[in-house]
Amino acid sequence: MNTIKLRSMLEQFYIEDIGDQDVSSDFLFPADMTGQLEIKAKEAGIFCGMQVIQEGLRVIDPSIIVNMAVKDGDAISKGDSVAIASGSVRSLLKSERVILNLIQRMSAIATATDAVVRQLEGTAARVCDTRKTMPGLRMLDKYAVRVGGGVNHRYGLYDAVMLKDNHIAFARGSISKAVQTVRSVLGHTIKIEVEIETLDQLKEAINAKADIIMFDNCTPETIKEWIELVPDSIVTEASGNITGDNIRSYAEAGIDMISLGYLTHSVKALDLSANVSFITD
Amino acid sequence: MNTIKLRSMLEQFYIEDIGDQDVSSDFLFPADMTGQLEIKAKEAGIFCGMQVIQEGLRVIDPSIIVNMAVKDGDAISKGDSVAIASGSVRSLLKSERVILNLIQRMSAIATATDAVVRQLEGTAARVCDTRKTMPGLRMLDKYAVRVGGGVNHRYGLYDAVMLKDNHIAFARGSISKAVQTVRSVLGHTIKIEVEIETLDQLKEAINAKADIIMFDNCTPETIKEWIELVPDSIVTEASGNITGDNIRSYAEAGIDMISLGYLTHSVKALDLSANVSFITD
Amino acid sequence: MNTIKLRSMLEQFYIEDIGDQDVSSDFLFPADMTGQLEIKAKEAGIFCGMQVIQEGLRVIDPSIIVNMAVKDGDAISKGDSVAIASGSVRSLLKSERVILNLIQRMSAIATATDAVVRQLEGTAARVCDTRKTMPGLRMLDKYAVRVGGGVNHRYGLYDAVMLKDNHIAFARGSISKAVQTVRSVLGHTIKIEVEIETLDQLKEAINAKADIIMFDNCTPETIKEWIELVPDSIVTEASGNITGDNIRSYAEAGIDMISLGYLTHSVKALDLSANVSFITD
Amino acid sequence: MNTIKLRSMLEQFYIEDIGDQDVSSDFLFPADMTGQLEIKAKEAGIFCGMQVIQEGLRVIDPSIIVNMAVKDGDAISKGDSVAIASGSVRSLLKSERVILNLIQRMSAIATATDAVVRQLEGTAARVCDTRKTMPGLRMLDKYAVRVGGGVNHRYGLYDAVMLKDNHIAFARGSISKAVQTVRSVLGHTIKIEVEIETLDQLKEAINAKADIIMFDNCTPETIKEWIELVPDSIVTEASGNITGDNIRSYAEAGIDMISLGYLTHSVKALDLSANVSFITD
Amino acid sequence: MNTIKLRSMLEQFYIEDIGDQDVSSDFLFPADMTGQLEIKAKEAGIFCGMQVIQEGLRVIDPSIIVNMAVKDGDAISKGDSVAIASGSVRSLLKSERVILNLIQRMSAIATATDAVVRQLEGTAARVCDTRKTMPGLRMLDKYAVRVGGGVNHRYGLYDAVMLKDNHIAFARGSISKAVQTVRSVLGHTIKIEVEIETLDQLKEAINAKADIIMFDNCTPETIKEWIELVPDSIVTEASGNITGDNIRSYAEAGIDMISLGYLTHSVKALDLSANVSFITD
Amino acid sequence: MNTIKLRSMLEQFYIEDIGDQDVSSDFLFPADMTGQLEIKAKEAGIFCGMQVIQEGLRVIDPSIIVNMAVKDGDAISKGDSVAIASGSVRSLLKSERVILNLIQRMSAIATATDAVVRQLEGTAARVCDTRKTMPGLRMLDKYAVRVGGGVNHRYGLYDAVMLKDNHIAFARGSISKAVQTVRSVLGHTIKIEVEIETLDQLKEAINAKADIIMFDNCTPETIKEWIELVPDSIVTEASGNITGDNIRSYAEAGIDMISLGYLTHSVKALDLSANVSFITD
Repeated sequence: MNTIKLRSMLEQFYIEDIGDQDVSSDFLFPADMTGQLEIKAKEAGIFCGMQVIQEGLRVIDPSIIVNMAVKDGDAISKGDSVAIASGSVRSLLKSERVILNLIQRMSAIATATDAVVRQLEGTAARVCDTRKTMPGLRMLDKYAVRVGGGVNHRYGLYDAVMLKDNHIAFARGSISKAVQTVRSVLGHTIKIEVEIETLDQLKEAINAKADIIMFDNCTPETIKEWIELVPDSIVTEASGNITGDNIRSYAEAGIDMISLGYLTHSVKALDLSANVSFITD
Repeated sequence: MNTIKLRSMLEQFYIEDIGDQDVSSDFLFPADMTGQLEIKAKEAGIFCGMQVIQEGLRVIDPSIIVNMAVKDGDAISKGDSVAIASGSVRSLLKSERVILNLIQRMSAIATATDAVVRQLEGTAARVCDTRKTMPGLRMLDKYAVRVGGGVNHRYGLYDAVMLKDNHIAFARGSISKAVQTVRSVLGHTIKIEVEIETLDQLKEAINAKADIIMFDNCTPETIKEWIELVPDSIVTEASGNITGDNIRSYAEAGIDMISLGYLTHSVKALDLSANVSFITD
Repeated sequence: MNTIKLRSMLEQFYIEDIGDQDVSSDFLFPADMTGQLEIKAKEAGIFCGMQVIQEGLRVIDPSIIVNMAVKDGDAISKGDSVAIASGSVRSLLKSERVILNLIQRMSAIATATDAVVRQLEGTAARVCDTRKTMPGLRMLDKYAVRVGGGVNHRYGLYDAVMLKDNHIAFARGSISKAVQTVRSVLGHTIKIEVEIETLDQLKEAINAKADIIMFDNCTPETIKEWIELVPDSIVTEASGNITGDNIRSYAEAGIDMISLGYLTHSVKALDLSANVSFITD
Repeated sequence: MNTIKLRSMLEQFYIEDIGDQDVSSDFLFPADMTGQLEIKAKEAGIFCGMQVIQEGLRVIDPSIIVNMAVKDGDAISKGDSVAIASGSVRSLLKSERVILNLIQRMSAIATATDAVVRQLEGTAARVCDTRKTMPGLRMLDKYAVRVGGGVNHRYGLYDAVMLKDNHIAFARGSISKAVQTVRSVLGHTIKIEVEIETLDQLKEAINAKADIIMFDNCTPETIKEWIELVPDSIVTEASGNITGDNIRSYAEAGIDMISLGYLTHSVKALDLSANVSFITD
Repeated sequence: MNTIKLRSMLEQFYIEDIGDQDVSSDFLFPADMTGQLEIKAKEAGIFCGMQVIQEGLRVIDPSIIVNMAVKDGDAISKGDSVAIASGSVRSLLKSERVILNLIQRMSAIATATDAVVRQLEGTAARVCDTRKTMPGLRMLDKYAVRVGGGVNHRYGLYDAVMLKDNHIAFARGSISKAVQTVRSVLGHTIKIEVEIETLDQLKEAINAKADIIMFDNCTPETIKEWIELVPDSIVTEASGNITGDNIRSYAEAGIDMISLGYLTHSVKALDLSANVSFITD
Repeated sequence: MNTIKLRSMLEQFYIEDIGDQDVSSDFLFPADMTGQLEIKAKEAGIFCGMQVIQEGLRVIDPSIIVNMAVKDGDAISKGDSVAIASGSVRSLLKSERVILNLIQRMSAIATATDAVVRQLEGTAARVCDTRKTMPGLRMLDKYAVRVGGGVNHRYGLYDAVMLKDNHIAFARGSISKAVQTVRSVLGHTIKIEVEIETLDQLKEAINAKADIIMFDNCTPETIKEWIELVPDSIVTEASGNITGDNIRSYAEAGIDMISLGYLTHSVKALDLSANVSFITD
């Protein structure tokens, strides 16, 4: 991750939550009262968010000392300690909600990714994300997918060409024409992915030398049959209606990549808690 | 919502997704090609996000014309049209993902809120949110809860005092002392909420004249019994382990407010789609 | 105060004043010349602005060492030392004007607030501010009122409902209707204040169970008479044409809160000076 | 003024005041209810703030129609209409406080400036401001001084050299040395002003060919005597303890410029009011 | 280009140049004086910067009317009119320097790119840029290269892997190891480019299945010999000490891409002028 | 330079280049691998950019240790070491391109300025820059001119009046009228420069008591003749078609200042390189 960007995001998030002051802590505690914050797991999963905890506390108060008990990618169980921080009580209480909101999401994404990655063990297929991330949080969402063992699809509209049905329709239905038009002005470092739904489209995409071909809403059976036509130099990807239940059949059909929107658009927070207490020896 | 803030958020979100250009659309289509974007429902729910669609398209290109087919709070069914916009194809294709990512979340929150609000029909209890929103998106998350028929808990650390176990522990365990300390410097427009877990704490919070008392992780049975002690002038709130399945029993126990973190921390996107096509007469 | 926000404000203020460089100090002194800055009181008052001095110097140059001679809320007399800082002469000279401009305003607000708070000694009434603060400086202005012994009215349009004559007129003149409309969608943590000018309005506001009733431009005599009707659970507030000269009569009329716009809209800077000199042993 | 900067400032100020929504207006009125805002004078003075009203309403809602009844620099009397705007009630109510806070300050500065400018009628002296403006508002403060008939001193540390006692002390007490050091690296478009307190300093400043000499805390009598030594090519300026009461004696002593810190550091808001009402024919 | 980003950049650039006001135009001309701005070529080249002119004028003043006489990529000759705009004289004079500074650079880049592209006519090689762009202006610099007939190399560190000598040295000198390490966590949409200097490195890069191989500082003769080993599926790129004089020999050696740092790091502005005048019929 | 502004610029530039992560270094190296960065000269020139290196590394990673081998203004030869930094390899590799892009430009500007300054040795003329700087980089461009021994012309439209042919034409052709109009509202700290092309204009500018007179596109011969008319109190400046080849003849004609646009609008980067390696003892 880009720490400069992360710190700037955290500053914005704290301003959203704290506003002009924390009327509970700032009005209750003296500025010099110290305590300890412990983040613990309340359910099992894959932890993700180390830099959010470290930079999150540094942004709120550079004098806080943080000790991580786990690192990104570690499996955590209910009751496990995740991190312990000590310093100003006001600062600790101000930081906990923003940090929890972020690491619960990131850990949930990592956990969900890990679950499907395990489903694919022994196959050559890999899991990736989509652009269906939460606006403003893409860097964190995509990082969490990597921590869970997945890889990232394109980061935005800028770093890979994706020709979908819309694009091809406007290009008078011709995949070849669309690929050729884009390639004539596109740099050599950027790949072109073409989405196909029919056998004819597949053949056209192969002829157009697409770098990646996405089988959109195809069954594993169809993929298994059609994929024979695709040369090794073209990466294949499946997308649409794929879940933890049926994902292995796609992998066994020979697909290279499986992209899953739900990893980031439908996230059930991993339950983590924060507790601030007196420091006892 | 604050439109000035919404527009600024949308600009940031588009920069996140588009970067320096859309290498697919900008490299494929002429700048003056026009088309039509239709947003449709792929599953039933409560729609939320009208201003995101309208301002989202205005920010990307003020010449786009938008017609909403539904408005915030409307129930939509699978296949329903949500909005139709026409204008530059490049602009329409650039906007769709950011807009969908936001309105799928907002509609999901509104739909989930609406579901629990219906569970409470005929009771006096109301549903509210928490600060467990997605950092950077609190304005949208909280708006969606209102559209779903809920109301908002405090917006941040700045607009209501919440004295939790942490705060009270640091105040040497005395709720009275904590309330009194805060009240001595707090303005008259801000309420004090106290979280309680035991009968003694409840009594102390009542004596301290808390404005709101939150029954944290209490069963409906406990609440029903204890709530008899609370005078009418104090608002009661239940929180912790409450779901659509058991929520009615809390309401029937006589609680005023039920706060639900999962409405915003664990969101399963409502399925909406966007399609860009030629304009046909 | 929110330090993250304070630092960001200070950065903007320095850029406003310094621009691309300080053509006096940067062109005159070598980068490594060191000196000492002393801030002193040139008139008596209540000091406010400790964090502005500390963070203000830290933002300009983290290597500067600051020693505060007083703290927020302390009474200072002409000639008193407020703070001494030592470090790079260039840095010290760059910071002094921005810091002085802010702390002279904040100390003036604290001093003016303190003066009226003293007028009310022995009464139950408290002094509060309004939204008539300087745009961009509300956090500092409201903080200074608290340091002077006052409390804060609402921070903005977002954290309390205020129904004024305008609002009520548009609601067809009915206070009950206006209160009811807002309450139906308002969360339980936010209070509703109603402004009244006549006895009928007062009665209507009481019946509508407003949380706070503001007596707008009423004389102490009127207030004394009407306030008998207001139940204890409703906070009363007086506003309009109240000054240090007549404020005690409002308090003695039994009002709870007195809001004073002039504390922040008409500020006569407290005279503080900054002097940069050689460090002598 | 720079409109791009003004609009950006107004956006920040509105976000400060409105936050995520106006819980009074947004929760009370339908989005399509329209009305009229009238700004009126409640006391006499010199109006300043036309662009703040125009851009302020445009930023909040471009569909609002504004008609100015006066323009910057016009004398207004109690009861005079300043501006009338019509459009969405929600928008009008959201804008009024921010706009009033700004134009009350700007008009007060223009009025105070105008008062001292009138004191100097018939003399050759002119009034100017200082850097004692409100951080974040310098562009508006300095504009208001011009509208009141004064001119601007330097805008910041970047656009003119000012050698004060501090600077000269660090340059081993030599004005000549300080001027020479700065001039050797300074561009030809920037003037050097030297602050003097003694006759020796004055002579040294003259010899050093300072562009401007500031008589700091000198009496009119002293100035009258010493100013004979200053050649016509050097501008003279008086500063320190000058008020409306004694300013004319400084002018009559032959000084060119009189700088007044209080014009911007101690501002008593000019009383202006805003009223939102139904549009009636 | 991303118009949202362009507008935001232009706002920053205007604030840099205009500050709080244009003391020449704002103090000289009445606000309602109108005129005409004409941008003309003072030397021949390839024009680039249409959106900078259009958005640049829109940002400063939406009421200005702009007519472009040429479009991006057009060859212009000395004396040619580029654009004519009419509106407020103050606005036109405020905008001209920022716009000229940008379009002179962009047109220079397009012109230089066009010159080398012409050198390669009849060969299969293409010209591309590098990351040696001006910080803050990459979007514009890279756009200008495309307008000149070149294509873009990677946009930043985020959208393509480039393994240089440094990277490989740290990976214990093994290209295979470095490629493999990165590929294990890299998504399928991002290409890996490997920089080679020796024949052994070339062979290793081919075996590691790099997507792109960059011949760093190799002579055309070396490239011609070694390139025989590279399979068609790998793109080849030459870099280092290539100028308009020797570029064709690289193309004739069979290289696919030639990257030129000087296109953007050493730019001699194309001479364009702006003249503001009265509108005459 | 203003360090607060510099740091903010560097943050933006890094975000432009790094985006969400460096897919080469972040994916290849462990977070705790350390190394050394050396910046060296690949050609001779005047170095400029010390603060860019120091702050640039501090912004990316405060734990990096930097040692400068040269300081701003030092002449460097091919092969000279400029700076050595040690710390995290990921951080060092992320920073090098942004830093190089800036210091190559700044050193080139300083070198080009130094070259013309040397041409003028023994004359009284000085070299200055223009507003033809790269948008967003003016602070750095102007600083580099000073490091090269030149001085700065005005920073923007805000800090000096420049009356060009456009301005004068709109003022009905009268220089006197234009100067008088501006002076009536201009502060005493800002100078007025008038551009002249004819002898009549020169005389008018002298009579109008312009502070600076710019001879626009005049030959040295013309300047030599006309300059006799100009009193000592007015600074003279030559501009237009002046290069290293003919600059001395302008100086010998008696002009005070020579402004050169090409110093900043047409910059050929000074060749500097960065190498990251293992630390060896």
